[in-house]
Amino acid sequence: MKDKKELCGVFGAFGVPDAGHVTCVGLYALQHRGEESSGIVTSDGQNLSSKLGMGLVSKVFTEEALKDLTGNIAVGHVRYSTTGASISYNVQPFVASTGKGHIAIAHNGNIVNAIELHDELVRDGAIFQTSMDTEILSHLFARSRKRDRIEALVEAIGNLRGAYSFAILMKDCLIAARDPNGFRPLCIGRLGDGHVVASETSAFDLTEAEYVREVEPGEVIVISSSGAQSLKPFRETDPSYCIFEYIYFAKPDSRIYGHSVYQTRKALGRALAEEQPCDADIVTPMPDSGTYAALGYCEQSGLPFEMAVIRNHYIGRTFIQPSSDRRKRNVRLKLNPVRDVVEGKKIVIIEDSIVRGTTSNARVKTLRETGAREVHMRVSCPPHKFPCFYGIDFPSKEELIASRFSVDEIADFVGLDSLGYLSYEKMLEAMPIPGEDFCTACFSGDYPVPVDPNTSKCALEKGCPREQT
Amino acid sequence: MKDKKELCGVFGAFGVPDAGHVTCVGLYALQHRGEESSGIVTSDGQNLSSKLGMGLVSKVFTEEALKDLTGNIAVGHVRYSTTGASISYNVQPFVASTGKGHIAIAHNGNIVNAIELHDELVRDGAIFQTSMDTEILSHLFARSRKRDRIEALVEAIGNLRGAYSFAILMKDCLIAARDPNGFRPLCIGRLGDGHVVASETSAFDLTEAEYVREVEPGEVIVISSSGAQSLKPFRETDPSYCIFEYIYFAKPDSRIYGHSVYQTRKALGRALAEEQPCDADIVTPMPDSGTYAALGYCEQSGLPFEMAVIRNHYIGRTFIQPSSDRRKRNVRLKLNPVRDVVEGKKIVIIEDSIVRGTTSNARVKTLRETGAREVHMRVSCPPHKFPCFYGIDFPSKEELIASRFSVDEIADFVGLDSLGYLSYEKMLEAMPIPGEDFCTACFSGDYPVPVDPNTSKCALEKGCPREQT
Amino acid sequence: MKDKKELCGVFGAFGVPDAGHVTCVGLYALQHRGEESSGIVTSDGQNLSSKLGMGLVSKVFTEEALKDLTGNIAVGHVRYSTTGASISYNVQPFVASTGKGHIAIAHNGNIVNAIELHDELVRDGAIFQTSMDTEILSHLFARSRKRDRIEALVEAIGNLRGAYSFAILMKDCLIAARDPNGFRPLCIGRLGDGHVVASETSAFDLTEAEYVREVEPGEVIVISSSGAQSLKPFRETDPSYCIFEYIYFAKPDSRIYGHSVYQTRKALGRALAEEQPCDADIVTPMPDSGTYAALGYCEQSGLPFEMAVIRNHYIGRTFIQPSSDRRKRNVRLKLNPVRDVVEGKKIVIIEDSIVRGTTSNARVKTLRETGAREVHMRVSCPPHKFPCFYGIDFPSKEELIASRFSVDEIADFVGLDSLGYLSYEKMLEAMPIPGEDFCTACFSGDYPVPVDPNTSKCALEKGCPREQT
Amino acid sequence: MKDKKELCGVFGAFGVPDAGHVTCVGLYALQHRGEESSGIVTSDGQNLSSKLGMGLVSKVFTEEALKDLTGNIAVGHVRYSTTGASISYNVQPFVASTGKGHIAIAHNGNIVNAIELHDELVRDGAIFQTSMDTEILSHLFARSRKRDRIEALVEAIGNLRGAYSFAILMKDCLIAARDPNGFRPLCIGRLGDGHVVASETSAFDLTEAEYVREVEPGEVIVISSSGAQSLKPFRETDPSYCIFEYIYFAKPDSRIYGHSVYQTRKALGRALAEEQPCDADIVTPMPDSGTYAALGYCEQSGLPFEMAVIRNHYIGRTFIQPSSDRRKRNVRLKLNPVRDVVEGKKIVIIEDSIVRGTTSNARVKTLRETGAREVHMRVSCPPHKFPCFYGIDFPSKEELIASRFSVDEIADFVGLDSLGYLSYEKMLEAMPIPGEDFCTACFSGDYPVPVDPNTSKCALEKGCPREQT
Repeated sequence: MKDKKELCGVFGAFGVPDAGHVTCVGLYALQHRGEESSGIVTSDGQNLSSKLGMGLVSKVFTEEALKDLTGNIAVGHVRYSTTGASISYNVQPFVASTGKGHIAIAHNGNIVNAIELHDELVRDGAIFQTSMDTEILSHLFARSRKRDRIEALVEAIGNLRGAYSFAILMKDCLIAARDPNGFRPLCIGRLGDGHVVASETSAFDLTEAEYVREVEPGEVIVISSSGAQSLKPFRETDPSYCIFEYIYFAKPDSRIYGHSVYQTRKALGRALAEEQPCDADIVTPMPDSGTYAALGYCEQSGLPFEMAVIRNHYIGRTFIQPSSDRRKRNVRLKLNPVRDVVEGKKIVIIEDSIVRGTTSNARVKTLRETGAREVHMRVSCPPHKFPCFYGIDFPSKEELIASRFSVDEIADFVGLDSLGYLSYEKMLEAMPIPGEDFCTACFSGDYPVPVDPNTSKCALEKGCPREQT
Repeated sequence: MKDKKELCGVFGAFGVPDAGHVTCVGLYALQHRGEESSGIVTSDGQNLSSKLGMGLVSKVFTEEALKDLTGNIAVGHVRYSTTGASISYNVQPFVASTGKGHIAIAHNGNIVNAIELHDELVRDGAIFQTSMDTEILSHLFARSRKRDRIEALVEAIGNLRGAYSFAILMKDCLIAARDPNGFRPLCIGRLGDGHVVASETSAFDLTEAEYVREVEPGEVIVISSSGAQSLKPFRETDPSYCIFEYIYFAKPDSRIYGHSVYQTRKALGRALAEEQPCDADIVTPMPDSGTYAALGYCEQSGLPFEMAVIRNHYIGRTFIQPSSDRRKRNVRLKLNPVRDVVEGKKIVIIEDSIVRGTTSNARVKTLRETGAREVHMRVSCPPHKFPCFYGIDFPSKEELIASRFSVDEIADFVGLDSLGYLSYEKMLEAMPIPGEDFCTACFSGDYPVPVDPNTSKCALEKGCPREQT
Repeated sequence: MKDKKELCGVFGAFGVPDAGHVTCVGLYALQHRGEESSGIVTSDGQNLSSKLGMGLVSKVFTEEALKDLTGNIAVGHVRYSTTGASISYNVQPFVASTGKGHIAIAHNGNIVNAIELHDELVRDGAIFQTSMDTEILSHLFARSRKRDRIEALVEAIGNLRGAYSFAILMKDCLIAARDPNGFRPLCIGRLGDGHVVASETSAFDLTEAEYVREVEPGEVIVISSSGAQSLKPFRETDPSYCIFEYIYFAKPDSRIYGHSVYQTRKALGRALAEEQPCDADIVTPMPDSGTYAALGYCEQSGLPFEMAVIRNHYIGRTFIQPSSDRRKRNVRLKLNPVRDVVEGKKIVIIEDSIVRGTTSNARVKTLRETGAREVHMRVSCPPHKFPCFYGIDFPSKEELIASRFSVDEIADFVGLDSLGYLSYEKMLEAMPIPGEDFCTACFSGDYPVPVDPNTSKCALEKGCPREQT
Repeated sequence: MKDKKELCGVFGAFGVPDAGHVTCVGLYALQHRGEESSGIVTSDGQNLSSKLGMGLVSKVFTEEALKDLTGNIAVGHVRYSTTGASISYNVQPFVASTGKGHIAIAHNGNIVNAIELHDELVRDGAIFQTSMDTEILSHLFARSRKRDRIEALVEAIGNLRGAYSFAILMKDCLIAARDPNGFRPLCIGRLGDGHVVASETSAFDLTEAEYVREVEPGEVIVISSSGAQSLKPFRETDPSYCIFEYIYFAKPDSRIYGHSVYQTRKALGRALAEEQPCDADIVTPMPDSGTYAALGYCEQSGLPFEMAVIRNHYIGRTFIQPSSDRRKRNVRLKLNPVRDVVEGKKIVIIEDSIVRGTTSNARVKTLRETGAREVHMRVSCPPHKFPCFYGIDFPSKEELIASRFSVDEIADFVGLDSLGYLSYEKMLEAMPIPGEDFCTACFSGDYPVPVDPNTSKCALEKGCPREQT
């Protein structure tokens, strides 16, 4: 389900030989968090080197490009753009040259008071180069009256409201910082004598680093040649971890908030089987998103697990875009049902969400065309009814099918014989940490940090001249 | 397991509006049969248009490129090169301008008397442009004394020995031809009022075509404005279908030789569980190749199925190539074990083959590093001991681990607690068609069409000037 | 002679349909003033569009690129970088998004108090994105307390010392500004109902615009929908026009400072013939720079004019760079002597300058190898002894051959039978405007605006992170 | 005047270290003979390497590309295509793999019996890969029954009628061959211990080779490790050197047919001044083609020489193509008149030809707009009335303005005050070799080798499938 996009993944390394290459591998493990652009900035202690570009890590970071990223300090970033257009100047990490030295910022999250801060800075003569809320932090840092760089940075971060997990590079140090609510994941590990930070632990696996712990909500960790120092400069608050990371975003081989994503999804699947059983011949995921919940569903229900739909891995971003009459053909380009598995069967599809409902509708149609007798769907979380302001780019409320329609109406729209969602309470029960520690705003509309709905995530973009790519 | 490569996939269309685009979609479904180069030639009844290029279908066929491929007749091809170097002049379909008109040939297979035919033609003044055995057919066709184009083509094909499934375009017709042994699959379908041919049926699913039947061994089908005509011009022989298409090559959502690839693999998995049980906590495939046999193994054994190793889909062909000290890190780049699934468990991996053993060794090592208590492996076919001369590019006999070592030695080399192969007899039993209809040369060394081992598949390449790309 | 580089050419248009295309043509006429990068920013009255890139105008501005440059206001820029490396973020026009709206600045010249202003701004929290002195103006503008945009801009410009000819775009107006000394040329013309500004008049010829007059030293012209308004906001001073524009830089088909470049060069050639006669058989320029002085020299001396050396126009910037043993061959790649003209002849070469002397030495050697009996040289200006701080990128004083050697020593080094320079006084006499109106610092060392030699033009570059391209 | 295009330039080297690089430099000197594509094939005595591409030498032959062109034997080629489209498979040298070994052919000229030979070969089973008449030679060679390679090649060449200057590479030798009429130039030189051949001597200057002599009409020179051997295998005939090489095509710094191109053009200019005087204030060439005739015209007439029109060297092939209303602007893009030279003057332009007359008309118009009082034109050869079948791609007879209109009518069309052509007799008188040794078909219609006007140069192209680039 690609209707929902997260804004970023971040990675940082300090005291790691060939830090640029290590960061490249780390970003590759985080690619699912942002496919639109990739960037790495390194420091050799004195000078910074950078390589930023539109596209996947494997496209931007050729062997050639990596050769120039010298030094053993690095930060990297992968990103989804929040707009349709590919805007090359919005690639991160954001690098700024300030009176306090260079700073390179990699950011995952969304600053909810960005417009307010931006307007104030601009009124005061600041010149913005991008439409990223991330740039605000660089101006706050540059203008801070604190003489000490770290104090200035902490002061600057203190002005931000909302969701942020930062990996920040200065010429001789690496800083990891996470907002007091801890909306987005961020963890710290060790690699040899050095340190690494990453949005998810699978980045540690691939870089052969060892997981140490989560960066705590509200914590700022400063890593320099004198070691890692933990600061807790902000007022403490209750955590509100994004629950959707567990359900959909994070990689199944990652741990986040201290627990396994894979096992959490299986637990959701088992809970779903208890709450929403189905009289079906076979259970199938829509690859790859519902696979782990489907395994849990089978485990609990005893129904057979099949890969009734085969994913084609060769699909490229630039693949021939269909004109209207080719639309249908393209549904199968990515996922093709297996006739000999589907024909004559009652099938239950396990999904992790229904956003707009249009893609599900098309998929169900191809299953019926391939001979399925009945098609049911069970969803491993409650209906999505509210937009996210903390770093996930859901469609607007109007486009979220569950915000306008009942479950029965959705079943009709998607073309299902039956549809069942996991309940809110059952979802929280299945989680490995207490339910009150989560942000569940997209299900409940209960926003832990106040937001002004007019303060859209794209609002800054009005300010930027259109650049051709 | 990427140690074995097939040479090609072919697709053809006649009487199909926008045949170039349809062929592009068809090739996309066949991409697993050849990732190195892609090509399409179309005809509008009078003039040919072509687009050939190195790389995946999604790279070569931009919307722009497709626009110029006009007409409702087309043939297309995807290819692995048999050499390390990417040689751009060896892209198919091979187009020749002859006194009998233009001909475009897409070929899957391997001609075993290629050197002999080539040398004879060259002695007679023929000029070769490529090192592909496919080009031989064009010379035989051009030089035939038969006045009728189809008669000339049949005469030319009659000189070939070995494995071939052809899709051939002339300006106003499409010809499908399969060698008398039927080594490689080839099937025919209908799309609207027109016809399509393809190596596998999943190409029909994606193009919304309807499967009609296999092209029979030794059959030549000529499709023109006067309909489809079946010829049987060659001496009949017993079929010898490639058994490895079922085990590994073909896509699980395809039917070949008239039966489901997916279900055949599950049957192999069930047979494997019967013959080679394992005292394990969980069963896991190495994605994606062993997945379907693993499902069968679980079905039969009752052991739980887990996706203990997560595949990263973002890997590109050009991804940073590791220098020696980065080698190990790169094993995880593609497949990363899930710690919370693996830790403390007895695991049995289901594989479809062990070729060199080196990749398996690296994968087993990462599983142990991730905490697996025991690692076993069960393989859904017998050991590979002999090279293929009919279109699969296995490593040489010396590199095939099973041709030099016993099962116990292989288990040792790979680092397994135990290893078991499906027996030859049990494999044939699990097949949906009689065992004697298969070519099993790679297991048995019994070659249905005589081959001279010195007639290597690359021998023609000596003749070609090196071209830079 | 490519040893000396000017920093820029600027062009602007207001009220001109298809202003982006017109500016592209204008830049093309100014390409000799900067071959390294090209950029255009347009406005449709509300939104800005921009296209900047490394390379020649003809490379950066494809038909595709021009299509997106909508609106009838535009500024454009061509540039030499002052460093060897191609630094893509230093392409102009420099665009900034400020609290007073967008501003796009195209600059020709050099700000001599750039370091001082830069350091002050940075101390005050300004973030610099480039190493161009041009960016300083944008910060001064953004921080001005004046509410009116034009007043703020004038205040900002008032802080700059040195050489500048600006073409500046805001969303609804175009501003042309020239420093009080008028170091660099800048002229204004009309095109239909609109206005254009350009560094040289040949840009008016190519855009079919009509020359109106020079922008006066110290003048700021604001062109908006209410017409063109002339401001004289700065303290008046005596002009000091760059004399080297006449001698070498400007295009021969341009007028600058109100007079013909072509005719001025011919006048220098005539003066040179009077002052420095030569007993030669033929006169030849080194194409293309000395051509016009050579015509004047012949006119005065009566000696025959020959094109004894043929220029090859196909040379590209990226042409095969010679390793040491290929060096000599490459001298002829660009300029090849004509044996049948040169053989046995006494030749006098007319040059516009000798900077390092190494290129001249190589050229003279090929003439002798081709059979010249004697090779003399006459230079249409005095020896270059001093660096320029007002926008020309001469080699350093140490590299200027005339700052270290006598005329006789230079003749020896270059390998000439005789060498003569035009005298300082005679040069001024040949000029179409009074001698005291020129900056002649490169000959005399007399700098009209005080400079600190430590304030090198490249000093800002230390501040910027290295970016790969 | 770019209305006429020659088909090619050829270069060859034997026994020359780094022959690929030397050939690259040689081709660069011959670039004016073909700007559309460039190619080099080298041999190290055993294996061939090749690099062919669309575009200028400086684009195709990067340092990278040259590195792979190993060996000390080479042939190279530059080419104009005869069709509008850029057809990448028509790039030379043409390489073929035959039973007699590899052969690489670089060809300048046009085979007038190409269609006849082609059809015969095709009937006999030959497969053509390109639409170049050059390919015919490779088939004749491959099919020759002569066992000796050189005998086979000579036999093959003997079948050709028309114009050809060949540089041919086999793995261990270089062959230079020129048709019995000697239509196109070809000369031989020495470089160190090796040999070089080239279309023009300026290629020798740039490669530091020493000119030895012309390859004689009808001569075949075989250069191998046993030295250079001259064959005269064909029936002798009177020479018919292309006179237009002297007038327009060859580079001024070259010698062809044993004499200086530069001096021949000056002689034509002097003859023109005698025969076609003009009451003008100044003489100007249209750069660069008429420059040398203009120098001769001034020498004879005593009128002053001015560069009244300045050529812009930055124009690229891909520069923004004008839509109708931008057409006029683009005339000046390439050549801009100098107002201060032109204004109020009576001007005589010296041209080397008027082909269609449309370009001249546009140029004359801009001169009048720039203030010229009178504009006259004198042309240094007679009117062009007949097409060329020996290697120059003139427009068709219908498009040649002189084939349809009188001199007065042409003057009217072009917009001149007066127009004068050099007479046929006077032209021949001014030549450095006897008039009867020239082919003057384009002036006289007298074709030395019979041609069938239906046998167009493009006729072969019908046979080739359209390939996208």
